[in-house]
Amino acid sequence: MAFKHITSRDNPVFKQLRKLVDQSRERKKTASSLLEGVHLIEAYWQVYGEPRLLIIPEGQSSVEATGLIQQLADVDTMLLPTLMFAELTPVASSSGVMALVDIPEAVVPSTIDFALLIEDIQDPGNLGSMLRTAAAAGVQIAYLTQGCTDAWSPKALRGGQGAQFVLPVVEGVNALSLVSAFGGQTLALTMQGDSLYQQNLREPLLFAVGNEGAGISKALQSAVDTCITIPMAHQGTLALESLNAAAATAVALFECQRQRLALSLA
Amino acid sequence: MAFKHITSRDNPVFKQLRKLVDQSRERKKTASSLLEGVHLIEAYWQVYGEPRLLIIPEGQSSVEATGLIQQLADVDTMLLPTLMFAELTPVASSSGVMALVDIPEAVVPSTIDFALLIEDIQDPGNLGSMLRTAAAAGVQIAYLTQGCTDAWSPKALRGGQGAQFVLPVVEGVNALSLVSAFGGQTLALTMQGDSLYQQNLREPLLFAVGNEGAGISKALQSAVDTCITIPMAHQGTLALESLNAAAATAVALFECQRQRLALSLA
Repeated sequence: MAFKHITSRDNPVFKQLRKLVDQSRERKKTASSLLEGVHLIEAYWQVYGEPRLLIIPEGQSSVEATGLIQQLADVDTMLLPTLMFAELTPVASSSGVMALVDIPEAVVPSTIDFALLIEDIQDPGNLGSMLRTAAAAGVQIAYLTQGCTDAWSPKALRGGQGAQFVLPVVEGVNALSLVSAFGGQTLALTMQGDSLYQQNLREPLLFAVGNEGAGISKALQSAVDTCITIPMAHQGTLALESLNAAAATAVALFECQRQRLALSLA
Repeated sequence: MAFKHITSRDNPVFKQLRKLVDQSRERKKTASSLLEGVHLIEAYWQVYGEPRLLIIPEGQSSVEATGLIQQLADVDTMLLPTLMFAELTPVASSSGVMALVDIPEAVVPSTIDFALLIEDIQDPGNLGSMLRTAAAAGVQIAYLTQGCTDAWSPKALRGGQGAQFVLPVVEGVNALSLVSAFGGQTLALTMQGDSLYQQNLREPLLFAVGNEGAGISKALQSAVDTCITIPMAHQGTLALESLNAAAATAVALFECQRQRLALSLA
């Protein structure tokens, strides 16, 4: 391994890392991104092998970070002053290690039984959380519209906690074409529609979820087979009861999971 | 109404507002807090009446903010330079209005059929999201342990989107005493336990959910009747599949809601 102590912001590798943090275009062009923290780096390593570069701050790293750095002793390592490291990390208190990694290509499964379509989600943390939920619920593939934030940004990776490594994510999708081509039922999660709990969710399906503020676009609502709603308490009493996009996605996808488990038990 | 244009950080009212943003103790001592944005202020107004003070930034406010300010024309209003306003708001891009309000006392319902116990949640946004989910799922009361972040901080209020106005929130609760006194079944959401979907959730119950990192404490796990798990896909294949605290809470509370709806339909 090569070990470098960089202290200048003009260092070309550091400048490149800054670009990868800030620019979706740069991440896509170079098919690389940055991972923050021991858990995420271990998860990547388990699935895709060693990262290209470890980045650590001067001073104290956590015990876990130090352990990981020792295990990955043959990976090139860059030591940075605390303030320069802080420019790269998406979290306020880092565990003291980041990694530069290749973004793998999404491997689309040959038969798709349970797919998620995410329309125009803006917040990287929300997107990451939705992908994490999807992976846990057994979704096989996540399609993201062009209006979505980048699934491989450091913040979205942090929110996903490794979901992007096990769940194929296809970005830049045209939602209407996808829905019309999908060989199964297509559903959209909306504020008004059929009850989630009265829907047969055991057959092959594509579930569409929408933007934090606006929800699913009218065009996509018209394109899907059925609009679905999560029944809520006190509905209509006050305009207060609602779910945020990530929570609504969790409820919907796990209702699919529940029905499918019941089927596999039966 | 009184309209004041404040430009000095030494203004005693502005200093008091800063304290309310920063200090949980000050919010509790004065039983007051700050709301950010039109939606939240409207929701508060609908439930508890007019806020004590409106706070607006110089320059452009959104159309919605301007409309609200006109409707609340008899409420005292403070105009602040943009930078001073930014010191008060918990969001990066404000809709251009905040309000100083009284924190109401929690009204505990006489019979409790569906309660949530939140143990040591640290992140105000997560806590707010969990309260929002709980209100939507029909939870009647939320108990927060002493280790929880303050439910009435501007950030938690923002995350709750009005949940704190309709859901009684009791803070500083001793979890073990509460569980032993509760007159119904007590459940804890954990990584290992009985399947959520095989549990009868129609009877009076208290659901305990835990901290983002550590989950439910061992002491609380031992104290409850049953530990419950959300079955996940690929469990054990990789250590990646899990849910964040807010998503897990959403899945669990809406499974209660689903079973209760089925009962009310039957």
